[in-house]
Amino acid sequence: MKAFGPIPPEFKELRALQWVSEATPAYIYDFAIVSARIAGLRAAMPKALDIHYAIKANPMPALLAAIAPLVDGMDVASAGEMTRALGVMAGNRISFAGPGKRDAELEAAIRAGVTLNLESISESQRALAIGKALGVRPRLAIRVNPDFELRGSGMKMGGRASPFGVEVEHVPELVRGIVAGGGDWRGFHIFAGSQSLDTQAIIETQAATVALAGRLAKLAKLAPPLVNLGGGFGIPYFAGDTPVDIVAIGTALGKALKKLPKILSGTQFAIELGRYIVGEAGVYLARVIDRKISSGETFLIVDGGLNHHLAATGNFGTVVKRNYPVAVTHRMQDVAEETVTIVGPLCTPLDRLADRVALPRAEMGDVIAIFASGAYGASASPSAFLGHAPVRELLVDSRGH
Amino acid sequence: MKAFGPIPPEFKELRALQWVSEATPAYIYDFAIVSARIAGLRAAMPKALDIHYAIKANPMPALLAAIAPLVDGMDVASAGEMTRALGVMAGNRISFAGPGKRDAELEAAIRAGVTLNLESISESQRALAIGKALGVRPRLAIRVNPDFELRGSGMKMGGRASPFGVEVEHVPELVRGIVAGGGDWRGFHIFAGSQSLDTQAIIETQAATVALAGRLAKLAKLAPPLVNLGGGFGIPYFAGDTPVDIVAIGTALGKALKKLPKILSGTQFAIELGRYIVGEAGVYLARVIDRKISSGETFLIVDGGLNHHLAATGNFGTVVKRNYPVAVTHRMQDVAEETVTIVGPLCTPLDRLADRVALPRAEMGDVIAIFASGAYGASASPSAFLGHAPVRELLVDSRGH
Repeated sequence: MKAFGPIPPEFKELRALQWVSEATPAYIYDFAIVSARIAGLRAAMPKALDIHYAIKANPMPALLAAIAPLVDGMDVASAGEMTRALGVMAGNRISFAGPGKRDAELEAAIRAGVTLNLESISESQRALAIGKALGVRPRLAIRVNPDFELRGSGMKMGGRASPFGVEVEHVPELVRGIVAGGGDWRGFHIFAGSQSLDTQAIIETQAATVALAGRLAKLAKLAPPLVNLGGGFGIPYFAGDTPVDIVAIGTALGKALKKLPKILSGTQFAIELGRYIVGEAGVYLARVIDRKISSGETFLIVDGGLNHHLAATGNFGTVVKRNYPVAVTHRMQDVAEETVTIVGPLCTPLDRLADRVALPRAEMGDVIAIFASGAYGASASPSAFLGHAPVRELLVDSRGH
Repeated sequence: MKAFGPIPPEFKELRALQWVSEATPAYIYDFAIVSARIAGLRAAMPKALDIHYAIKANPMPALLAAIAPLVDGMDVASAGEMTRALGVMAGNRISFAGPGKRDAELEAAIRAGVTLNLESISESQRALAIGKALGVRPRLAIRVNPDFELRGSGMKMGGRASPFGVEVEHVPELVRGIVAGGGDWRGFHIFAGSQSLDTQAIIETQAATVALAGRLAKLAKLAPPLVNLGGGFGIPYFAGDTPVDIVAIGTALGKALKKLPKILSGTQFAIELGRYIVGEAGVYLARVIDRKISSGETFLIVDGGLNHHLAATGNFGTVVKRNYPVAVTHRMQDVAEETVTIVGPLCTPLDRLADRVALPRAEMGDVIAIFASGAYGASASPSAFLGHAPVRELLVDSRGH
């Protein structure tokens, strides 16, 4: 038997998930939890801090529309994401990061007044040239490749050779180049890692990021209008994971923002979160099509798998297969009765949603829930693989709004 | 510097790939290579052996239409794949395997005269009931969970507790149940693994599979009309990989089929191959958008990545990141000039197509080729991830047909 991760607090109280009768396979996103997370951030973070949503975590259009009034900005990673964000928010509140932006993407962003987070000097040259050709002053920020990384993060994005961002020593020159080239310099975007559950590491990284922004501003002799500190707040997925302490983070960040160097006194600061805002709000539901015993092991075969939820099967950039939180939806509070392996309908041994977990007995027709599924689910899975139907996505609000 | 895998022989001779001017990112499938692989199999395998195409490897419709006249059957893994196969082939030449088939899928298969490879006793009961309700005699084969596995295979599918197939000791009873229930029993489907490069292991597994079919037929006291021996022939992906010896396999299989037990004397045998037929025929092409040096490491940032080719980035069920064969398309025979890391445009460190490979210098605008990309490419990748455009797929024939 292998343990599974903690069920998010809002679902832990329930006797039964209420969406059992929905057609499966489906993702259900509970907006009550999304708005509770954002409200929690607003309460914990310094008043003046902007909160952005990184839509890569979950770009479902209805969800974006619901989140837009609650955040100060949205961050996108492609022209496709930008089009979605522009559907719910003005261009001047959107920023676009990502290496390898094509000319057409740069042009679309400049036309829409979206801030480009520049990833290289050659990208800045292309953007300035496109702005000139369009007769539009491009809004340009610099994505900095920080000279430190976020400890404990699932994906380190700083402190090393990287396709992301501009190295610290080239930043001052690039600021001057943007200004000289007629660009509207918007500031810095500094992202050191993601999915960290280490509160102290996040606090230290934010402090280092603020300090780096100050150092770069002094070298460039120009105050950045905005500094995006990145995100990196993780959510618990696996046994033993514990949530980050956002109150501690907010308190520390508040202190750091009170001791700013003079050059940053007029700077707006932002954090950019994706997974933290939507991850725990999502549940993946799949129905048991077959129960099967093979060599003494019990398998529940459900109607969706890695084609919809690659991350839960452990096949997306992970080395060790660990179990996401899981439950039998109509027996949330019942004691475990058997050890089962839950697999999807795909003809590959990779398609394993839960490995030898202890659960109440589920029969054919019953619905299994995989929690912590609101981020990097439907959009980050190979939905065409083996020709199964795409997954449904449903936005609900358990507060009844 | 890290080595990369062998470029398939047909491409190794070229000074330049001829599709440089195609819009990128794109998969190009050269049907000349597909048909050469099938012709090679026909020449190497026993005359009477059927060759099936497992369309999960690459379900592109134009490719299926081109392959259909060259093979004896197609194997599908979902109703979606079945619909595509029925577009190019009669239902009685198609078989459908996969755990967790829904009632609607069973019904569609039975209506179309497609053979269902049953994965469990309860699935057989559902299929027989549906056949009865429709007034159609269902074509039912049994997928056997073999009591051995294919050594050296990338994915072991036998010799262990498994969601796939029926355990050997239950098979005779299931054969009798199908016949008694009015089903048209079509035989066995026995699949012990995939992506093996160990010729001797494949030979031994095929011999064991033939022996198992004989043993099961004797226990069931009924001759199977068809025995599908599965596939498992790998292709070279990584440095040090060498191709399987299909002549040796064919010779050994020919001998095994000459020494059949009497009960199998009227049985038709088939092998089912996917990756072997199409894998080496495919090339993924992506264009260099940016060249960037970070901490002394050179990055080529190209216009497609794991959103199109998850397997090449090593993020699909693999533990160690190894490099697929790679080239700069217009400099195929030139000597290496620099060590580069090739990354896609996605805002994640997972998006790495080639890790520190030695190549001729490529400039912005040049096209990079990733070979051995014809199988489990476009359809097995999270194409919606981060909102980039889907990949083009193009079927060509370098013989000029």
